[in-house]
Amino acid sequence: MPQAVDDFLSKNAARYEDELCELLRIPSVSADSKFKADVRRAAEWVAGQFRNLGLTTEVCETAGHPIVYAEHCRAPGAPTVLVYGHYDVQPPDPLDLWTTPPFEPTRRDGNLYARGATDDKGQMFTHVKSVEAWIKTVGKLPVNVKYLIEGEEEVGSEHLDGFIRDNAAKLKCDVCVISDTSQFGPGSPAITYGLRGISYFELKLQGPDRDLHSGVFGGAVANPANALAKMLAALIDDEGRVQVPGFYDDVAPLSDRERKQFADLAYDEAEFMQAIGVDALRGETGFTNIERRWARPTCDVNGLTSGYQGEGAKTVLPAKASAKFSFRLVPKQDPEKLKSSLQQFLLQRCPTGIKMELIAYHGAPGVVVPLESPYMSAAVRAVEHGFGRKPVFIREGGSIPVVSTFHDLLGVDTLLLGWGLNDDNTHSPNEKFHLADFHRGIKSSAALWEELGKLKH
Amino acid sequence: MPQAVDDFLSKNAARYEDELCELLRIPSVSADSKFKADVRRAAEWVAGQFRNLGLTTEVCETAGHPIVYAEHCRAPGAPTVLVYGHYDVQPPDPLDLWTTPPFEPTRRDGNLYARGATDDKGQMFTHVKSVEAWIKTVGKLPVNVKYLIEGEEEVGSEHLDGFIRDNAAKLKCDVCVISDTSQFGPGSPAITYGLRGISYFELKLQGPDRDLHSGVFGGAVANPANALAKMLAALIDDEGRVQVPGFYDDVAPLSDRERKQFADLAYDEAEFMQAIGVDALRGETGFTNIERRWARPTCDVNGLTSGYQGEGAKTVLPAKASAKFSFRLVPKQDPEKLKSSLQQFLLQRCPTGIKMELIAYHGAPGVVVPLESPYMSAAVRAVEHGFGRKPVFIREGGSIPVVSTFHDLLGVDTLLLGWGLNDDNTHSPNEKFHLADFHRGIKSSAALWEELGKLKH
Repeated sequence: MPQAVDDFLSKNAARYEDELCELLRIPSVSADSKFKADVRRAAEWVAGQFRNLGLTTEVCETAGHPIVYAEHCRAPGAPTVLVYGHYDVQPPDPLDLWTTPPFEPTRRDGNLYARGATDDKGQMFTHVKSVEAWIKTVGKLPVNVKYLIEGEEEVGSEHLDGFIRDNAAKLKCDVCVISDTSQFGPGSPAITYGLRGISYFELKLQGPDRDLHSGVFGGAVANPANALAKMLAALIDDEGRVQVPGFYDDVAPLSDRERKQFADLAYDEAEFMQAIGVDALRGETGFTNIERRWARPTCDVNGLTSGYQGEGAKTVLPAKASAKFSFRLVPKQDPEKLKSSLQQFLLQRCPTGIKMELIAYHGAPGVVVPLESPYMSAAVRAVEHGFGRKPVFIREGGSIPVVSTFHDLLGVDTLLLGWGLNDDNTHSPNEKFHLADFHRGIKSSAALWEELGKLKH
Repeated sequence: MPQAVDDFLSKNAARYEDELCELLRIPSVSADSKFKADVRRAAEWVAGQFRNLGLTTEVCETAGHPIVYAEHCRAPGAPTVLVYGHYDVQPPDPLDLWTTPPFEPTRRDGNLYARGATDDKGQMFTHVKSVEAWIKTVGKLPVNVKYLIEGEEEVGSEHLDGFIRDNAAKLKCDVCVISDTSQFGPGSPAITYGLRGISYFELKLQGPDRDLHSGVFGGAVANPANALAKMLAALIDDEGRVQVPGFYDDVAPLSDRERKQFADLAYDEAEFMQAIGVDALRGETGFTNIERRWARPTCDVNGLTSGYQGEGAKTVLPAKASAKFSFRLVPKQDPEKLKSSLQQFLLQRCPTGIKMELIAYHGAPGVVVPLESPYMSAAVRAVEHGFGRKPVFIREGGSIPVVSTFHDLLGVDTLLLGWGLNDDNTHSPNEKFHLADFHRGIKSSAALWEELGKLKH
């Protein structure tokens, strides 16, 4: 990489942080309609960055939050890279657990604390600043770059697939890049080659038409909260295996090679437990902790609501009870097949006197990216340049549905280059991004343009 | 009963209603500290009634709301009756569902609408006016009467047991009378001879020390919401039987006589279902709806809280999950024994990686009053005099803990003479008291003094 680019990055590091703070101050919570104007403000802010660099830039309307598209395609013969990221963030609740307010970015112990710091404003922004460094020094990029930055990632990317389908020609590329994952650990950069899919549901039960006195009616009427507990309890057995019929039918077994590769990673289980404050781990029998998180499907309840939730005691037999819960899927499992099997499974267990409604939210299949490709090799060299250390290959338990979409609609694989850390508190209070990793990410990204530029189109 | 007493009741009926309205206009909401002065005003108003009749009267301070005590003991050799009631009321919310304001008593369709109309101001007041009729005509009562009218019934009667214990000598009596229940149906007066007890718990589970990303961690860490579902589901089997060891050990089986007695009551199951908006009933196998509600113990979840409860989807693996749940108990079941057995039962089912805390709220044993007693016979005759119809014997599913307290601390049984109706909307908007039942209640009470006076002490 040209020394001038590296020098520019060093000289402008403080400004990059300040600019990221500007973006983090915008509460672009896509899930909550009262932040709608802020979500748009974040989109415009990101578009402004691209425009200032002279990129062709559009803020594209959708039926939901807008998508920012930008491109800089002035390297004929070189590959075209599509960078995906998102400018929306998770809701910050519970607010009282934040040490400093979620939308007042604060530096502390080498970290930047704010909602969205790592997921995904901070990580996405590394690919903007890396382009700036090339343009301001060399005058152009050694590759063609396109950006697709959406505002609905945290609410299921409802309008993204349609946009990609409608704009497939414009989005045509050779490889995609996403930074929305984590390193394997501090000082251990990683390239993520596998992700789990997801199917997210809400189960709503209705018993009597209003809350009843539990003394007068208790014992004679099906209680939706009791029924909910029974139905949810039936989903997983004591060995951690999901009980919905057919659930494991299409699950690809873990290969011996992959199991060994996972086992060889420097991983300290005691440290893992300490980091999340538990004194024991628990999951599907017959698999290691890493295997369970990266390569095995599972089911977690995400939320429960029913009856009296205030202080003290209230003797109510609740009219309603509901749960949000989701399955993590591995490659080959079909979210649609699961949905209909689940509906049956729950209906069979819904007691008389209770009406049930099952709402299916977003679903996405799991994905595995091939390790043997020139793009992957280029990414390895770029990350090594940025972090001073060869990345390890890992999978992740989370889902990035767009990776499947890119594969299916654009016919390309995605490089998942994660600059985050596992304890970054994404989706939790006190989300943070390690500032040194922010700068290493920018440097890796700048090197990636060089490495990809060396490849023939 | 002397004709003069009956005549006095008829002549003064309108004034009785007006006086009740005075009391109902005082918003004595014990749960809300902003009504504290109104609660005291209601106590003073009740005390004023007793003083005007020449009863020895005290407004007794407690650490909470005051207790009104009064007595008229001028019938040597006759039994002593302790009348219990309460002058506090439930909060009136939601206000917008009231047809007329809760603290502006309004006559409509033969009913008096107001918060507290039946629970318990109106019912309690019948025993005040009946005494007035005797004193104003005969000059004295044929029994000795003591009154214990508290102001904290709707908030758990926190200071009542202590007061009874401290004043056991003063409260010494032969039988207690409470009118705070319902008739079996319109035109079907009833004496309630059994109540269920209650043990109320809150189960709090803590998994990881903060909410985690369900993708990154799902499958490797015990999820407290999943664990809660499993633990609650284990409490009752599919036959509606509570699974806590020993739970049924002390449960007195229903006698054939009692089962027949319940079955003979004029009860329309379709109407019952329609009234609460369900298309099926469900409960312990082998028992009728009435048996399940009145004479069988049960377990109901009263509230559930965990993780994300907002709109849409959030992929959180919650740090905490908690449930409020309660058991209704029948006579002989011991709340203390249940508590320790339950603690064991739940601990055994609490997965590794989860910490549990079980909080026990109020407990009260169930109670059955013997039907074969001269006091009960006297009550039957009195109710027949007031309502023109023999009362049926019923039990109730709810709990009136003071009935056990009177049994344990004063060694006496309680006559539960309910003048209300099941659709009186106690604890709901548009609470009412049927005015004809108000007057029938007063007449029954006046007859009760006569009937009890005939018994030897």
